[in-house]
Amino acid sequence: MAEETLAALRSLMASHSPPLHALVVPSQDYHQSEYVSARDKRREFVSGFTGSAGLALITMNEALLWTDGRYFLQAAQQLSNQWKLMRMGEDPAVDIWMADNLPKEAAIGVDTWCVSVETAHKWERVFAKKQQKLVQTTTNLVDEVWKSRPPAEVNPVMVHPLEFSGRCVADKLKDLREKLVQEKARAIIITGLDEVAWLYNIRGTDVSYCPVVHAFAVVTLVSAFLYVDNRKLSSEVTSFMEENGIEVRDYGEVSKDVTLLASDQLVHSSSSKGSQTSSSLGEETKANGSADKGNDLIWVDPGQCCFALYSKLNAEKVRRQQSPIALAKALKNPVEMEGLKKAHIRDGAAVVQYLVWLDKQMQEIYGASGYFIEAETTCQKKQPNVLKLTEVSVSDKLEEFRASKEHFRGLSFPTISSVGSNAAIIHYSPAVETCAELDPDCIYLFDSGAQYLDGTTDITRTVHFGKPTQHEKACYTAVLKGHIALGNARFPNGTNGNTLDILARTALWRYGLDYRHGTGHGIGSYLNVHEGPHQISFRPAATNVPLQVSMTVTDEPGYYEDGNFGVRLENVLIIKEADTKFNFGEKGYLSFDHITWAPYQRKLIDLSLLVPEEVEWLNDYHSKCKEILAPYLNVAEMAWLSKATEPVAA
Amino acid sequence: MAEETLAALRSLMASHSPPLHALVVPSQDYHQSEYVSARDKRREFVSGFTGSAGLALITMNEALLWTDGRYFLQAAQQLSNQWKLMRMGEDPAVDIWMADNLPKEAAIGVDTWCVSVETAHKWERVFAKKQQKLVQTTTNLVDEVWKSRPPAEVNPVMVHPLEFSGRCVADKLKDLREKLVQEKARAIIITGLDEVAWLYNIRGTDVSYCPVVHAFAVVTLVSAFLYVDNRKLSSEVTSFMEENGIEVRDYGEVSKDVTLLASDQLVHSSSSKGSQTSSSLGEETKANGSADKGNDLIWVDPGQCCFALYSKLNAEKVRRQQSPIALAKALKNPVEMEGLKKAHIRDGAAVVQYLVWLDKQMQEIYGASGYFIEAETTCQKKQPNVLKLTEVSVSDKLEEFRASKEHFRGLSFPTISSVGSNAAIIHYSPAVETCAELDPDCIYLFDSGAQYLDGTTDITRTVHFGKPTQHEKACYTAVLKGHIALGNARFPNGTNGNTLDILARTALWRYGLDYRHGTGHGIGSYLNVHEGPHQISFRPAATNVPLQVSMTVTDEPGYYEDGNFGVRLENVLIIKEADTKFNFGEKGYLSFDHITWAPYQRKLIDLSLLVPEEVEWLNDYHSKCKEILAPYLNVAEMAWLSKATEPVAA
Repeated sequence: MAEETLAALRSLMASHSPPLHALVVPSQDYHQSEYVSARDKRREFVSGFTGSAGLALITMNEALLWTDGRYFLQAAQQLSNQWKLMRMGEDPAVDIWMADNLPKEAAIGVDTWCVSVETAHKWERVFAKKQQKLVQTTTNLVDEVWKSRPPAEVNPVMVHPLEFSGRCVADKLKDLREKLVQEKARAIIITGLDEVAWLYNIRGTDVSYCPVVHAFAVVTLVSAFLYVDNRKLSSEVTSFMEENGIEVRDYGEVSKDVTLLASDQLVHSSSSKGSQTSSSLGEETKANGSADKGNDLIWVDPGQCCFALYSKLNAEKVRRQQSPIALAKALKNPVEMEGLKKAHIRDGAAVVQYLVWLDKQMQEIYGASGYFIEAETTCQKKQPNVLKLTEVSVSDKLEEFRASKEHFRGLSFPTISSVGSNAAIIHYSPAVETCAELDPDCIYLFDSGAQYLDGTTDITRTVHFGKPTQHEKACYTAVLKGHIALGNARFPNGTNGNTLDILARTALWRYGLDYRHGTGHGIGSYLNVHEGPHQISFRPAATNVPLQVSMTVTDEPGYYEDGNFGVRLENVLIIKEADTKFNFGEKGYLSFDHITWAPYQRKLIDLSLLVPEEVEWLNDYHSKCKEILAPYLNVAEMAWLSKATEPVAA
Repeated sequence: MAEETLAALRSLMASHSPPLHALVVPSQDYHQSEYVSARDKRREFVSGFTGSAGLALITMNEALLWTDGRYFLQAAQQLSNQWKLMRMGEDPAVDIWMADNLPKEAAIGVDTWCVSVETAHKWERVFAKKQQKLVQTTTNLVDEVWKSRPPAEVNPVMVHPLEFSGRCVADKLKDLREKLVQEKARAIIITGLDEVAWLYNIRGTDVSYCPVVHAFAVVTLVSAFLYVDNRKLSSEVTSFMEENGIEVRDYGEVSKDVTLLASDQLVHSSSSKGSQTSSSLGEETKANGSADKGNDLIWVDPGQCCFALYSKLNAEKVRRQQSPIALAKALKNPVEMEGLKKAHIRDGAAVVQYLVWLDKQMQEIYGASGYFIEAETTCQKKQPNVLKLTEVSVSDKLEEFRASKEHFRGLSFPTISSVGSNAAIIHYSPAVETCAELDPDCIYLFDSGAQYLDGTTDITRTVHFGKPTQHEKACYTAVLKGHIALGNARFPNGTNGNTLDILARTALWRYGLDYRHGTGHGIGSYLNVHEGPHQISFRPAATNVPLQVSMTVTDEPGYYEDGNFGVRLENVLIIKEADTKFNFGEKGYLSFDHITWAPYQRKLIDLSLLVPEEVEWLNDYHSKCKEILAPYLNVAEMAWLSKATEPVAA
């Protein structure tokens, strides 16, 4: 099949006007999403590679797939011999490769709806050396040859009520328009699915794991538009939009409307309440002509907006800057914070219930010594006829516990449920057919989270139900020390996540150990599990946004030993004002509230490596854990948790 | 006098061609030095402000002085009412001020020998908005009006022998030329005084505290030039230059020669041995025509080279990049490392002798309880007729102890000797007439260093000879914890000093405390006490050079309470390969060797705040201190040191 697809694409490339020397197929949808819906998995369809990140390039005689280190093994297994794997960081980057290998003046086709302004500009600079051209294909060529492409989803849009969103659309639009004026902009084009959902207080189920709706938004100083498949809107939602002065137009109309916007001709239909309340049509047209007041720019986030929409604007009248919604969304309001805390308590209860269940299963089925006792597994107790536990079956059980909780709406990302050496694969995703069986003699790592109406969760714990080695304990303890050092830090206002990253690593560095991923990301309020604009990483962020009060951020150091085991510990934190004795420089100092609740396994901690401050933190966290989760657990579960959270001494 | 100077300058500005709207007088000499000689203190001469950093601007009716936060108080005191103080960070920057306040097409005069390429380019970009122009004055106008300007120093140049430099000039030139070829350069212009001294293995006494010679160097692929006042060279030094193929030309000839270099016409005189050994003159001219081989650029360090020299080049044929000598100089060779270690041992002995002496004086003169005992001062024991101790008199005594040591050549910077609230002034420099008296009830901080033939030193200790407050102890202990956390760190190859900076601050941040300076700088090998290209600072370095094996760097956190007291602790470290158990990612891990030896005062440490690892480090350091300094101390001094370095328990 892959062969036919390539042949069909090459035929379309040859008959294209102009004929294409190469076709780029990125992973992204029209919104530059991290997770995309089935019908947007074009790169997966053409290449057969299912990883989350990658880019396919098809020339008349070659087919190449670029992906990063997380996926080298998987891509090598999944790609047919028609395809060549290009290793990011080792092989030349895709734009360099094209400039070097394609002929002078080559036409390089791409659907520019799937490429950000930033990426397109970068490629164009590289291509310029050989007068190569980036060509917007007349249609998406992959869609042309994809006979079995899933149809467009028509999932209902839901209003996200004030009791969870905490701030009404009118207030959000008011804040946004103030920012537009500050930046001398008369409008903004919003393409990020979570930004549209956040701004208009709507949610949906168009994309797995992310409660978003396939939609664009355009907001001017006087009007607001939502571009969405109208069939997804109930009369209730339609009314909600009208009440908020948001005019709903078809998803496909965004293209035409951005063209109108460029010439300041985009106005509300007269039927819209928003325009009615603001002025008559004639007056509104004048109001839109806001260039008079010095606001004549269109704000576009170059890392997020697709090149196709951007191309319709006059480049000299564009404000290219990170969307102001990124920071506004990251700063949780009191209702969102309260919701996130509550969601994390229910989620923590589900995780404890899962551990209690798993502990019992591991002892009964595999003769493991269990969560609390550190002893060799009594192999004779293995029961060959009992249904085995697999990475997938246990993660289904974890989902079951979560699904029983109030406000549950699904998982927030594919659960990483990994035994032994699989735990060393940072982005491991077990498949039913190939996943491993649980093993009482191996470490088990699970990284998972859920979507609740009141908040999104993300937690990682690493456990062992038998007798861990001294080395595994030393590594777990070093990771725990880093996790505590970061989570327990105090720092002045203005500090960037990049500065704090080292706190999670120094304990590992003492042994000459490290991990190849960042340490923390923001998390949404019933939205995407990964959100910016801040982060905690050794890589300086493209967007240099400091950590600020009311932001969420994860604290997730790890250690991965290829072919052997992995350790990761992750809590979600909320940034707050720190209660410091002094306030040098009147800067204000910040610290973190942990909002994730689940115990760390005593057995994996080498207490002799902890300092008194760490022991104190651990005992305090465990004591709160017990108290906070109590209302959600039954007697047996509570007995287990009491034991798991007993105070320790160094 | 200041008034006459301004009038004279304004008269020169008016008669200048073109007439000048403003005259800029920077602090720098022709080499962008941190410390300048008396005759180069032009900004101090015109403004009366003696601080190390500042910039004067004179217009027809105004005189303004920009300086930074360290000097606001001092500048306000020293400036006459003719002058207006401009506070950096609060008031507009000098270039912005000129663009805003000077007329369109204004001519802004400056001696471009005193301005770096980087600064001049930055100003020109700002001036362009109003078609203002940066004008090279026909002469240095300040020199014209400075009747009492000290004459040019004629201090002897000394060869820095191989037993201290560790690498001969021929080898250094070979390495340098390899780098030129790598960067497609046919020559480099070297303007940094320490770079010239390092490259040619020469030292001098032209600038206080820095054993450098006023000189430029130009190195091409086949020739090498030194521009220096010939009277400074003995026949021995002249021979050394000849042996190394370095042609000596007059300091003033550099200007003409750089013009020749631009057109590839700069060649050795036939008398030079260097040219004789390489080829006949005719052939050499051809060899210089290295553009044939693709090396046609001239390397210029834009942060260091003056705009005057740069202007003589064809900008399109300039490689603007940090000088390769910066890193080569920072990576100490084994002989330099050995020398630095030895110099620091002798220097540490002098510091201990000083502390022993000071301890005795404080008890005898002021009735202090002394270095070891924590008790109220017995004021009745004060002897009013005995000569008092002042910040300057005790620092003279410290210099005396240092001067008695082998290879001593002077101080490496003005000693900071500060009592009580003076210790809160980070760059405090006591003056004989105004300095404070020692006080047994106050903290005393001294930050000092010396130049020895085998190495440069820099150490800070903070002590108390009476009864420190609990708050002073808590602050001292937090600074010590940061000092240990950084000095005891292990980190992977490739880590930048910017990443490590936080380690020295987290203990302070817990209390809401901080300090407003970087944490570490490189130190020379009988050269400048401050050198790059690396540093440890919260500010990302302009030159993003990671910490590397064999670099020196200081570890000097502090805490300063305005009007009250200050604490700083400083050791010099050498970076080495760390002895880690593992080597994750095959990156190699690094750690530090402390090479500074002097005790931390037990009395100022709140041991209850230290973790076992810190206590262990402290006891280990103190035990080494005692062992290493023993050969340099007499019986009484050794008894004192033994007591000062007794092991402590948490």
